[in-house]
Amino acid sequence: MSAFFEAHKSTLEKALEVSKTRDYWSPYPEVASGKIYGETAKDDGAAAFKSVLGGPFKLEGHPGESTVGAEQSPYGIDLDIAYPKASPAGLLKASSDAATGWAKASIEERTGVCLEILDRLNKRSFEMANAVSQTTGQAFMMAFQAGGPHAQDRGLEAVTYAYAEMTRTPQTAVWTKPQGKHDPLVLEKRYRVVPRGTALVIGCATFPTWNSYPGLFASLATGNTVIVKPHPGAILPLAITVQIGRDVLKEAGFDPNVLLLAADEPGSEITKELVEAPQVHIIDFTGSNSFGRWVRDNAGPDTQVYTEEAGVNSIVVASTDNFRGMCSNIAFSLSLYSGQMCTAPQNIYVPDGGIETDEGHKSFDEVADGIGKAVDKLLSDPARAGGVCGAIAGDVTADRVQSSASLGAVLRPSAQIEGMESARTATPLILKVREGETEAHHEEQFGPISFVIAVSDAKEAIERAADLASTKGAITASVYATDDETLDAAADAFASAGVSLSCNLTGGIFVNQSAAFSDYHVTGANPAGNASLTDAAFVANRFRIAATRRHMAA
Amino acid sequence: MSAFFEAHKSTLEKALEVSKTRDYWSPYPEVASGKIYGETAKDDGAAAFKSVLGGPFKLEGHPGESTVGAEQSPYGIDLDIAYPKASPAGLLKASSDAATGWAKASIEERTGVCLEILDRLNKRSFEMANAVSQTTGQAFMMAFQAGGPHAQDRGLEAVTYAYAEMTRTPQTAVWTKPQGKHDPLVLEKRYRVVPRGTALVIGCATFPTWNSYPGLFASLATGNTVIVKPHPGAILPLAITVQIGRDVLKEAGFDPNVLLLAADEPGSEITKELVEAPQVHIIDFTGSNSFGRWVRDNAGPDTQVYTEEAGVNSIVVASTDNFRGMCSNIAFSLSLYSGQMCTAPQNIYVPDGGIETDEGHKSFDEVADGIGKAVDKLLSDPARAGGVCGAIAGDVTADRVQSSASLGAVLRPSAQIEGMESARTATPLILKVREGETEAHHEEQFGPISFVIAVSDAKEAIERAADLASTKGAITASVYATDDETLDAAADAFASAGVSLSCNLTGGIFVNQSAAFSDYHVTGANPAGNASLTDAAFVANRFRIAATRRHMAA
Repeated sequence: MSAFFEAHKSTLEKALEVSKTRDYWSPYPEVASGKIYGETAKDDGAAAFKSVLGGPFKLEGHPGESTVGAEQSPYGIDLDIAYPKASPAGLLKASSDAATGWAKASIEERTGVCLEILDRLNKRSFEMANAVSQTTGQAFMMAFQAGGPHAQDRGLEAVTYAYAEMTRTPQTAVWTKPQGKHDPLVLEKRYRVVPRGTALVIGCATFPTWNSYPGLFASLATGNTVIVKPHPGAILPLAITVQIGRDVLKEAGFDPNVLLLAADEPGSEITKELVEAPQVHIIDFTGSNSFGRWVRDNAGPDTQVYTEEAGVNSIVVASTDNFRGMCSNIAFSLSLYSGQMCTAPQNIYVPDGGIETDEGHKSFDEVADGIGKAVDKLLSDPARAGGVCGAIAGDVTADRVQSSASLGAVLRPSAQIEGMESARTATPLILKVREGETEAHHEEQFGPISFVIAVSDAKEAIERAADLASTKGAITASVYATDDETLDAAADAFASAGVSLSCNLTGGIFVNQSAAFSDYHVTGANPAGNASLTDAAFVANRFRIAATRRHMAA
Repeated sequence: MSAFFEAHKSTLEKALEVSKTRDYWSPYPEVASGKIYGETAKDDGAAAFKSVLGGPFKLEGHPGESTVGAEQSPYGIDLDIAYPKASPAGLLKASSDAATGWAKASIEERTGVCLEILDRLNKRSFEMANAVSQTTGQAFMMAFQAGGPHAQDRGLEAVTYAYAEMTRTPQTAVWTKPQGKHDPLVLEKRYRVVPRGTALVIGCATFPTWNSYPGLFASLATGNTVIVKPHPGAILPLAITVQIGRDVLKEAGFDPNVLLLAADEPGSEITKELVEAPQVHIIDFTGSNSFGRWVRDNAGPDTQVYTEEAGVNSIVVASTDNFRGMCSNIAFSLSLYSGQMCTAPQNIYVPDGGIETDEGHKSFDEVADGIGKAVDKLLSDPARAGGVCGAIAGDVTADRVQSSASLGAVLRPSAQIEGMESARTATPLILKVREGETEAHHEEQFGPISFVIAVSDAKEAIERAADLASTKGAITASVYATDDETLDAAADAFASAGVSLSCNLTGGIFVNQSAAFSDYHVTGANPAGNASLTDAAFVANRFRIAATRRHMAA
């Protein structure tokens, strides 16, 4: 019996239902409104954020001999937060010591703890919005949604799948085998969930919570102890998460070291030592292909590794019955968080002979110009530009924008955003190239960099984009076409390449967006990642089942 | 719409149900009776088996330039069967060429094909019994059950789990997100199953069908093409399986090369080339730890590898209220198929001070003698001995029995079975050792070789056995104890070591036996294998889901 489980049982039941219907649903409101979160929630969140700046971050009882932390805000404010600095050995020891009690907890107890953590995270969404925005550069409203409720949705989704998988086997069974005229053989069987061991969650710099919560909660719910290794540039959002988690664990009677923070600094990261540790049996990784490959190659032979790496996302423009809607939809996708989403499109394939539209035939250049001008229009007001683009998370991305201007003919130059002089900003750089004349667009150019690529026709566009997805990975794909033949061909090609496809988006839905309980994020079927958020495969191997059987007492 | 699916739908529905209740059930009768299988079934099966001896095995349209095959019967009869010899490159090409149609088939079509194959396999169970017995050395009745109906059960179980996982996501969904006063956002979504590619199933010499069917049918049902690589000593059972499968595939309108046979000979195996092929994305392996590790290390980075390797299975004898029942139950477990089952016990831990029983206190030696004499009694009639022990599959095992007599004090010597002079036979060799004085029992000694091991008490017995399971692997464990404290301690220790536990088996159930739909075979949580037959983890990652989404037409 678990009080937390009882308190959140109806949320879990609804989540179980929608994960099957895959309709829209969320228990965590995405509207940052005082009416929902409390009239003082916004100010309280800002105050809570400010209170942790310039001092030690409190994690009671957490291992650590000294402090560490060198986060830099892309908005230029001083952070100076000091986190407990624990050695990998110290973290692994504390994690192992906490394991037995957590493994022995009932499915309901563990699920209850996870649901309570999510509920408390939700209540602190404004504080989280500040933490996410100031570490990643996301604009405040996006940081609220993606770092708060949407991340919580993804965490709940993982808990839901874990619960479903753990409970699909009964805890007890009676096995009765007829023996003809003799008495039947009757065995009593008991099944128990056995966790794999210690789980490591490696966070990224841009979506510290959204990308980490699925693995974190899936491992926790299935009985594994969890060490959270944030990106050194975005520790605070995960430190707050660990803080809340440890409070709930303690209240529920568990060792808070079931959930640990492995903070470090750029240049002295402890990630590799943790990845190679034999005690670590599960790793969830979000990051680059090169480090993802290193993690996959260097994790122990019995370690399950789930990755979201990177890829080259494409849009195929074949025809449209809403040219303006298409251009403004694409413009928003290119601009949102300055192209720093793993779901942001990079390559826009357009036939060199142009396309048919509701405004008549448009040449290749007219299509490109339409997109470029739609970006200009979207970002014409500096305040709105800041709200859409936010800031650039890392220097390396800002430098890449500068150096990429030579990769093609500049359709739209990148610029800093007016009025945000203390922040690191860059609006979308859009280049025009011709397929076959350059290879630059065959690689991920992370950040607000995109290519409008001339190809011979829609068929080639689909082939090139799908082939790139197969070989370099892709997390999203998008197609504009007015005929079913092209849409069907694109659906087949991108499915084979392991990419989900958005068709003819012109309204308030963007290819970048992925909704919990409905959209699978990453398929696991191309180099952009070996796992999907969240399907059964993402949770089913985080635990094993051990049974006992005996003759049934008469 | 699939006629095969409709024909077998009720079987599938029942299988879905019992995989949740985990009660006894089988649609494939294990009784080798003419009343069930037809009065002439036994003779027909024998005749069908004889008809393939000494000539080419017919697989119409199968790739292969010449023939291959050097199976040796442990019973000494001439086999001389010639199978198509195809190069790895030829097999991989044919498999890839067959992939598109199979991947595009509906879930129902593929499931229907699998269910029909299983049904036809069932009808040919007598033929299969001959094939399994004469290649593996299993006694006829065991070959019938384990090679026929029980293997078919495990195949059906895999199809059932695959079907459940593929259909847990709907094929279409409507996603409606409210927008306050505005019209809701409405998206139409479609989800499709995307197979991983070509699957390789690597069979073993002792249970060619039972151990191969789960992977074979799980991969096939989820849309992958399958190359079956039998052990060179036990090709025929899998050749018959592939023959039936190809017939069904062809009748259903698919390229029969969806299912291929990769036959080879000892000394010129093609396994490694197939394992390393980049087209192979799934491998199911049953075999030794050393080759298992090679497979895991050398499979491609994106290849899912499911293994059943080997381990050291233990029995803990702490106390019993049925001494004779215990001894005869253990005796049968040691003797069945001459200890060549991956589930057979090897180590029997007994406190050196003896144990309490319903017959009063028994010293260590009395317990050991009780087990040894129970084996003698079981095997006293040569005909029954042959029926229980069968023959020894490989020379190396027979040699090991000879050389192992020096590993401890011989409690019971191994012997050949009277009247089976043309066969390679060996009854159980049982040795007595003291923990700490030898390491021989810390390794798997495959075959009819077991150890009665003196330890200080039941606590040490559990610790030693569980520790060995954790470090060397174990597929089964068994405990005899009259007190709950010992049973609970054993349950905890073996669960932590990732082994399922049988308690106080004294009747017609043996630790070696594992029932489909109820017992998970191997946990995947120790070195004896990284997968379990069959849980969701065994099937969920054999496919991925790709989706499309678009604005809903008004």
